[in-house]
Amino acid sequence: MQNSRFLRACRREPVDATPVWLMRQAGRYMSEYRELRTRYSILELIKSPELACEVTMQPIHAFDLDAAIIFADILPPLEGMGLELEFLKGEGPIIHNPVRTAKQIGLLKVPEPRKALSFTLEAIRLVRKELEPRGIPLIGFSGAPFTLASYAVEGGASKNRIEVKKLMWNEPVAWHVLMNKLATLAGEYLLAQAEAGAQALQLFDSWVGELSPADYKQFVLPYSRKALQIASKAGVPLIHFGTGTSGMLPLIHEAGGDVIGVDWRTDLATAWDQLGEGVAVQGNLDPVALFADWDALEPRVKAILESVKGRPGHIFNLGHGILPETPVETVRKLVDFVHEYTQTRA
Amino acid sequence: MQNSRFLRACRREPVDATPVWLMRQAGRYMSEYRELRTRYSILELIKSPELACEVTMQPIHAFDLDAAIIFADILPPLEGMGLELEFLKGEGPIIHNPVRTAKQIGLLKVPEPRKALSFTLEAIRLVRKELEPRGIPLIGFSGAPFTLASYAVEGGASKNRIEVKKLMWNEPVAWHVLMNKLATLAGEYLLAQAEAGAQALQLFDSWVGELSPADYKQFVLPYSRKALQIASKAGVPLIHFGTGTSGMLPLIHEAGGDVIGVDWRTDLATAWDQLGEGVAVQGNLDPVALFADWDALEPRVKAILESVKGRPGHIFNLGHGILPETPVETVRKLVDFVHEYTQTRA
Repeated sequence: MQNSRFLRACRREPVDATPVWLMRQAGRYMSEYRELRTRYSILELIKSPELACEVTMQPIHAFDLDAAIIFADILPPLEGMGLELEFLKGEGPIIHNPVRTAKQIGLLKVPEPRKALSFTLEAIRLVRKELEPRGIPLIGFSGAPFTLASYAVEGGASKNRIEVKKLMWNEPVAWHVLMNKLATLAGEYLLAQAEAGAQALQLFDSWVGELSPADYKQFVLPYSRKALQIASKAGVPLIHFGTGTSGMLPLIHEAGGDVIGVDWRTDLATAWDQLGEGVAVQGNLDPVALFADWDALEPRVKAILESVKGRPGHIFNLGHGILPETPVETVRKLVDFVHEYTQTRA
Repeated sequence: MQNSRFLRACRREPVDATPVWLMRQAGRYMSEYRELRTRYSILELIKSPELACEVTMQPIHAFDLDAAIIFADILPPLEGMGLELEFLKGEGPIIHNPVRTAKQIGLLKVPEPRKALSFTLEAIRLVRKELEPRGIPLIGFSGAPFTLASYAVEGGASKNRIEVKKLMWNEPVAWHVLMNKLATLAGEYLLAQAEAGAQALQLFDSWVGELSPADYKQFVLPYSRKALQIASKAGVPLIHFGTGTSGMLPLIHEAGGDVIGVDWRTDLATAWDQLGEGVAVQGNLDPVALFADWDALEPRVKAILESVKGRPGHIFNLGHGILPETPVETVRKLVDFVHEYTQTRA
């Protein structure tokens, strides 16, 4: 298992072909998933270890992927803090009791993820049993402190994130308390996932690209670093991913991670140059490119692979999660093409 | 007028204080504007030269701004092409007959902006009369070809811009026809605004940050360059602005512009280093920062001003348009602070 393409690439060791997995690879673009969703809500799928295991395995059965990622969501950890989470049909997640004052933040608990998120840890154990004979590693993940704070403060998706930024700027002490709690929770949750069997861990900072580099450095970096430092006790590769980070990749790297995830808004080789040779990189096809005809898509995939050719430590992925309407046949072609094109012939 | 702070800074000449204006400075955050909007729709305001003049002047009366920008919208030029535009309450603009095929694109007209957009050109003439005695220059603007194409193809705002990207990748010939028409229209419209009296012109590419640098270079840059080349016949400074461009600023510069607008996701001095000394820069405060308490905001404004101190050619602005709920008092303080802090004492 430690010799799998994916884990070797995380450690920047030579591989027989570039490993590939896709963020949100278990999800709505697959008919098998949509079928399950007619019977279960998202939270039901996440909280039933057998169902979460089944969903995690769906893309593994369908495609020649080099890693699985546990089916879960970044938001359930907030429930253990005392926040009321609901997924509204067609509108995404909302938090019914967002926190916006020092007092509300003071009341937030830091749950023990081994208890509060035992369903995901149990799902990880089940998935590992299925993956073991296939030699495919499993990735655990957590939302990063800023992205979690955005939901906790805004109460849901938000266009401009005015409330979370106001708290950050106007109430730095309350912000510190909130981010410290979230960093501990995210770090311990990642660690618990590794203990349960995850062989790599990804910290997702989906919303961090809304910050200026100066604000990231002052208000976010220390807490992402703390989460990654706690997780690093597991001794497994850590992937650090954010979107919209083209202007602050060195700061993302400074916060930590063995692998830095890069979205499609930066040239991958340029990004790697900025990061230095000390890290592996993951990325970075525009998820929308999977809607293009194969003849238009292939040269784009080639260009990414060619741009980092000869540099050990590239994990092919999209620049953000795969989109709901993505054609399944294109996903299959993409995964196979990455392997075929990069195969080293002995 | 040519000696105004703003125009001097566009030409990278020394100034007595850093000039400041704010994207969308005429708009919903002002009670004077909201009052007019109770009686008129957005398109009515834009299409009545007297009203457009009045709205343009509202922030000039209220704040010590160094430039006015004509009150208009990037979308009316699409009407002249044959697209049916409507602003829906609370939902923003929609195009009722978006174009998605080569045939539909072939039928799009390239209107003569001096006729099709005469209302904005007349508004420019009226505004110039009001600004002349005050010595304040006026900026004209146009949407850039990619942003216009996004609306024309998607039919409105769109989260992932799947349709416009599909067209770009799958139908490169139709794409070329569409972008050529839009580049001609945008360029001629800018030129016409300068002829009517605008003393600087801004090309807005609000949505270009959704593209990879490689796609920008291949599918967008040639057309933004064409628009700017047409506009350059006016001999006035050209400002080229996009959001989410941290990973492709050198390409934005390559497309053209005397002033490059930078959003807040990049450090301004780093951005200027990437662009080189041959251009002026405009930016780059996070628009949400205006919701912070002044004590939290002031050091952020200072940091931007300090980071580019001593480099002639900085125009202070937000990194994107001012938001509807922005406190007016903070706008006033910001504008005055930029001047006071940067004032050169003789």
